[in-house]
Amino acid sequence: MKTRDRIVAAALALFNEQGEARVTTNHIAAHLGISPGNLYYHFRNKSDIVRCIFADYSAHLRRSFVPVAGAASASPALWLHYLDAVFYVMWEFRFLYANLNDILQRDAQLHRQYLELQRELEGNLQILLQELNTQQVLMIPGEDIAILAQNLKMLVSCWVSYQQVQLPNVQISQAMLYEGVVSVLFLLKPYFHANKGPELSQLLEHYRVLAAASGDPFHK
Amino acid sequence: MKTRDRIVAAALALFNEQGEARVTTNHIAAHLGISPGNLYYHFRNKSDIVRCIFADYSAHLRRSFVPVAGAASASPALWLHYLDAVFYVMWEFRFLYANLNDILQRDAQLHRQYLELQRELEGNLQILLQELNTQQVLMIPGEDIAILAQNLKMLVSCWVSYQQVQLPNVQISQAMLYEGVVSVLFLLKPYFHANKGPELSQLLEHYRVLAAASGDPFHK
Repeated sequence: MKTRDRIVAAALALFNEQGEARVTTNHIAAHLGISPGNLYYHFRNKSDIVRCIFADYSAHLRRSFVPVAGAASASPALWLHYLDAVFYVMWEFRFLYANLNDILQRDAQLHRQYLELQRELEGNLQILLQELNTQQVLMIPGEDIAILAQNLKMLVSCWVSYQQVQLPNVQISQAMLYEGVVSVLFLLKPYFHANKGPELSQLLEHYRVLAAASGDPFHK
Repeated sequence: MKTRDRIVAAALALFNEQGEARVTTNHIAAHLGISPGNLYYHFRNKSDIVRCIFADYSAHLRRSFVPVAGAASASPALWLHYLDAVFYVMWEFRFLYANLNDILQRDAQLHRQYLELQRELEGNLQILLQELNTQQVLMIPGEDIAILAQNLKMLVSCWVSYQQVQLPNVQISQAMLYEGVVSVLFLLKPYFHANKGPELSQLLEHYRVLAAASGDPFHK
């Protein structure tokens, strides 16, 4: 791995473990066993590293939430794909969700990029919900799609920081984030077409099991 | 008004206008035209004032969300009462919602009180939803009441800080918070009994009008 990539990976790991505010460029350099000068050769400052991580975050979200049209949009496999992607970004970039307001307030350029990404994702989410209506998986009154998409986006955006307030002194765990995925499904539950009940139950059960697990399934 | 009460009122107003982090005890004293010494006679420090405001906040919430049993729970007037109370606390104590994580992280005692209050409110909300089921206003599957109550509580808790991220450089307005009330109703909408449609529409319309108003209806 190139030094630049190693710096980004180490920063992400340290931010997630200790919170972005507590980690300095010196910590990151020390963690990698490189000199601060070597780090500064690649990045001007910590904000620069955060922006680089944010670019990965955006790319990941853009790749994962491409709306699928037609019958394929109704496949249970696609639901798993989307919901796993929700979990993945919450977990992999949890430092961002944990401290979003502070991080964005410090960096106007990042904030603009964030809002652009949000608008794009909300648009895609609306297209997806519309498509699931067409495929008779969901039955959302047309005029409610926009506000439902907004509520879903808000739930995902706020989940990590809300859990931190509700469970102080508890480390963010994967189980905690799977509970967020269950809540996302729960927001959609009333709109599921009656004959999709079994599929919904299976999905809910799948994520409830993961939410109840105390372990760390990805990193065992 | 007693000096102590004037200090609390001035602090609340300044916190709401400028954000709690930016306001010092010196600002509060200067704003009231009293000496810092006089302020310190009443409060040891800013945390002391925040705790005092938090006590008002708690008392208000406890008074406003007493569950009502029987037919009375189904009256549209009660819905207005509860939803207005949601708006009122979000507006009146918006500095708290804007910066909850930071404020609570700094003060373990306050955090404990906050969590106790949250547990109490969530319990009351569950009782209320149960009662609205019994009165056939809502039709929530029994096993879904807990998670619905949780989602409602989360929405209200996160609304202000979420709006701040989505709309940077925009002052928190009453219209913005009425939109939060509309979202609360929207979460409940799929559970309304079919014959309660007209009542729900009226409620939604009432708060949508307030959310669309650009003015400041309370303080004109």
